[in-house]
Amino acid sequence: MIYIGIDVGGTTIKAGVVDENGRILLKDSVATGMERGYGPMIRDMAELGIRLVEQSGHTMDEVKSIGIGIPGIMNPKTGRVPFCTNLAWHDVPILDEMAKYVSVPVYVDNDATAAGLAEHVGGVSSTVENSVFITLGTGVGGGVMLNGKVFSGPHGVASEIGHMITVDGGEPCSCGKRGCWERYASATALIREGRRFAEAHPDCPLMKAVDGDPEKITAKVVIDLAKAGDPDCAKLFDNYVYHLCVGLRNIINLYDPEIIALGGGVSHAGQFLLDAVRAKLPDMVFFKDMPYAQVELAQMGNDAGIIGAAMLGR
Amino acid sequence: MIYIGIDVGGTTIKAGVVDENGRILLKDSVATGMERGYGPMIRDMAELGIRLVEQSGHTMDEVKSIGIGIPGIMNPKTGRVPFCTNLAWHDVPILDEMAKYVSVPVYVDNDATAAGLAEHVGGVSSTVENSVFITLGTGVGGGVMLNGKVFSGPHGVASEIGHMITVDGGEPCSCGKRGCWERYASATALIREGRRFAEAHPDCPLMKAVDGDPEKITAKVVIDLAKAGDPDCAKLFDNYVYHLCVGLRNIINLYDPEIIALGGGVSHAGQFLLDAVRAKLPDMVFFKDMPYAQVELAQMGNDAGIIGAAMLGR
Repeated sequence: MIYIGIDVGGTTIKAGVVDENGRILLKDSVATGMERGYGPMIRDMAELGIRLVEQSGHTMDEVKSIGIGIPGIMNPKTGRVPFCTNLAWHDVPILDEMAKYVSVPVYVDNDATAAGLAEHVGGVSSTVENSVFITLGTGVGGGVMLNGKVFSGPHGVASEIGHMITVDGGEPCSCGKRGCWERYASATALIREGRRFAEAHPDCPLMKAVDGDPEKITAKVVIDLAKAGDPDCAKLFDNYVYHLCVGLRNIINLYDPEIIALGGGVSHAGQFLLDAVRAKLPDMVFFKDMPYAQVELAQMGNDAGIIGAAMLGR
Repeated sequence: MIYIGIDVGGTTIKAGVVDENGRILLKDSVATGMERGYGPMIRDMAELGIRLVEQSGHTMDEVKSIGIGIPGIMNPKTGRVPFCTNLAWHDVPILDEMAKYVSVPVYVDNDATAAGLAEHVGGVSSTVENSVFITLGTGVGGGVMLNGKVFSGPHGVASEIGHMITVDGGEPCSCGKRGCWERYASATALIREGRRFAEAHPDCPLMKAVDGDPEKITAKVVIDLAKAGDPDCAKLFDNYVYHLCVGLRNIINLYDPEIIALGGGVSHAGQFLLDAVRAKLPDMVFFKDMPYAQVELAQMGNDAGIIGAAMLGR
């Protein structure tokens, strides 16, 4: 049997035909075209999947299920997506729409959840049954595996780890609250703090590295300067890692995973990030005499979304 | 088959013989006597269980398992309790010690976890498979049920929800960190804030209610005055409920339970607490268009510890 995995983002719809072992046989992508509304987008998703199956030399009869990773969540009881900001979706009957084009079972879950499943199937978390994948990007997303299975909760709202409040009264968040973890642990947070610092210290190496234009500051610029030994950026990075570890403490206290896999843009800092987290986390964990989660870098890269989505129905 | 449930606290060891349906057939207690060290304490636990089985007209052959709820955790891989402050235990081989006296399987878990299981078996969470029991007492403990089973995590450190950081940099906690949820959501927090307020406002009704002695302020005194309409105590209580709801938001974002059951000292405020939490929580939750956990009062009361411990091996 084969599976179709679809990874929907604001810019592109990626899809792949995936085998039982989580290997991509064939993949392709089309533009999301979100201005067209959900109908044409979902039709494109289905058609892309069908076309890839045919091009890979298979038939739809061989497809066990289709999985879709979305930058949001579906209500598992209604089969509808209540809202999905990045796709401009509101109350979208995704399962009904897909049923217009395909007759195989369709599974929908959060894209970070799909990526977490991909790490469990073929990546860094494949040796354990309990893991949390964390994407450190524009926001912070989570994919939780408990007892070898995707955990999305009975209402599908679990694993919204980025909107866990760690600094009550802190930085305002797009969700309307203050102090959500993603305001401190995302790439966006590192950029914000870099810009604040550079604007307050116009002569600093960080400002020079972006030719005096703080808008050009990215997480990579800050991290690269920290790596190179710039004390200001090292301090910004250290503070970032601290807040990352506050959230990891909470994740350990609640999920107690065996592996925490770091993915997303900030994880491209690689061993530099890993070393910093591993140095700080022991002081943060509650039970210091007990074994706890091992922090690792995610391994599946850009294909994680397709593979994980495909595996939702395995 | 019958079960022995043992609930160990700093003052008393409570035990009961419990049937397959979670009903106590016979129970009794002895003093903990923690100054004697773990050996005599664990012997007393075993002997109390054995005696109760005999007195209830059964034999040890009919006992399927013994469950023990402790104010701490056991490392499931070693069968040892790394530390347990309230019992002055450090690295206690509880399973080996129990094996000196009984030959039935022994299960050990956190006392709040046991109470959560009791709510699942016979209390307010019995209709659902996913629930979180929260004890609002001296500290804040948690008992998590996922997919109908106790969730303690692979290392046994899950459900330490009281030491989730919600106010980074906030009130110092006994664990060495600042801003743990229990510093804001426990009865202790309400007492602390009540005392601070009373000391700063010596003429306030709260100070009068304790005859000018802030040491006499309890959570109940503050709550009773809030109930009676005292605006200062109403504000203290409102702030308490706010912080309680910050943690509930995080619990919903991570565990997505169907029911959250509030127990422990503060829960004796009853409907007054429940109404306040239910009024504030909708504004706190992340997915406002999705169903989420229903908040209820725990129902099992003082016997929850015995019943839940007994059911650990069911």
